[in-house]
Amino acid sequence: MASLPSQGPAPLLLEPPVDRLLAGLPLYAQIVEALLARIERGELSVGDRLPPERELSETLGVNRLTLRRALRELEGRGLLRRRPGIGTFVAEPKIERQAGWLVSFTRGLKQRGYTPGARLLSIDTRPVDALQARDLRLPVSAMVYVVLRLRTMNSEPVLLESYTLAHQRFAGLERFDLETRSLFEVLESEYGVSIARARQSLEPVIAGRQEAELLGIALGAPLMLERRLSFDARDQPVELGRDVYRGDRFRFVTDRAPREL
Amino acid sequence: MASLPSQGPAPLLLEPPVDRLLAGLPLYAQIVEALLARIERGELSVGDRLPPERELSETLGVNRLTLRRALRELEGRGLLRRRPGIGTFVAEPKIERQAGWLVSFTRGLKQRGYTPGARLLSIDTRPVDALQARDLRLPVSAMVYVVLRLRTMNSEPVLLESYTLAHQRFAGLERFDLETRSLFEVLESEYGVSIARARQSLEPVIAGRQEAELLGIALGAPLMLERRLSFDARDQPVELGRDVYRGDRFRFVTDRAPREL
Repeated sequence: MASLPSQGPAPLLLEPPVDRLLAGLPLYAQIVEALLARIERGELSVGDRLPPERELSETLGVNRLTLRRALRELEGRGLLRRRPGIGTFVAEPKIERQAGWLVSFTRGLKQRGYTPGARLLSIDTRPVDALQARDLRLPVSAMVYVVLRLRTMNSEPVLLESYTLAHQRFAGLERFDLETRSLFEVLESEYGVSIARARQSLEPVIAGRQEAELLGIALGAPLMLERRLSFDARDQPVELGRDVYRGDRFRFVTDRAPREL
Repeated sequence: MASLPSQGPAPLLLEPPVDRLLAGLPLYAQIVEALLARIERGELSVGDRLPPERELSETLGVNRLTLRRALRELEGRGLLRRRPGIGTFVAEPKIERQAGWLVSFTRGLKQRGYTPGARLLSIDTRPVDALQARDLRLPVSAMVYVVLRLRTMNSEPVLLESYTLAHQRFAGLERFDLETRSLFEVLESEYGVSIARARQSLEPVIAGRQEAELLGIALGAPLMLERRLSFDARDQPVELGRDVYRGDRFRFVTDRAPREL
């Protein structure tokens, strides 16, 4: 079965008996397993719409409570996405970002088959804030560049980046094409400054008006705020970052080794 | 100056000139620096309320726009917290959690001078969900323990934990005191199972009704969801975790070494 159209009449999805191998399972679990298998085999693709609940429960010969339990379980795991009044869709899996590495956003997405893009929103020169001056070890009279950039994935905005850097050290930064080049690559190629490590943190926040508009999400939607202070090879602070990732598109992988129990 | 009372008439906080060393700075930055210094020296403590804006701007001889810029900067960095209609307070710093380590919640908090606590909300035995069965490599007919526990910090609820474990492997788990003992410690001491590594991720989510009630926060407040699958020394899955941390009390530190740029 090819990928279902997202619009138009919903085709039948499953025929009972679902699968001989699932015969011993509770009905709801059979449905979960059957849907999972179809997603894994690529018979159901990202964005495909499931038939309406009524139709699905009749086709499967299960009552709607049972069906809903299965759909809820798949939705809770992020495999289905319900859009009230529209339908239930196969969800795109969240992009997994390795929290412990400085992995290029661009390369990370390309490896997953997405087309990454960037839109430079602004590059301003302004007096450093008192707190930024502390972090960047700049005199409080210093000027900084503030670069605002929107990152896209298949043209959909997913990440809002803000970089703050010393104006004097990186004079002329506005001459470089920050829509096609990585900022860290520009710092290295054009200024001979390579980032050796970063001190950073993740915090959940909710979208304010500006973030909601730029990222095309609802006010109050969950976002991941990544704060970063990057250091060069001589351990001098180089860049202050404040990135907000759409919570519905990213998860941050933080695999652990035990330190103590 | 001792710590300010949180209630009652607000005492004067700063007298102009703020500080000789700050004389060259823009006014708002002088205020930021002066407040920071007082917080760092312990003259202003967590929970202290600042005088009202009108009074503060008069005392300092700056206009309210300048004062607000300083307060906004400190609030944005999490050093002040505004409670509309009540006042502006010195914020408790967020607890920093190392995302890459299995650090004990209890030990982590004690090291920071907090009194940790735990309340066992429920320990249920139920049929495994289809998706949990996959992760834990259990037959879909298996039973699991689901442990729900609320963790507190100085009696304030901050973290809601859910553990799912095979009932057969950990039969009798309900006999142990999970309000005073770490679950991982119980698994090791009582069942000889030690956790060797965990696959885990962080996602920003917003509080639903149950989470808001249990954690004492507003509906829609930001939470950090940590999903975890823990493995024993033979790399067999042991435990599925689903923890939600209050976003206003925790930040997750994920210091980075570069992997690629």
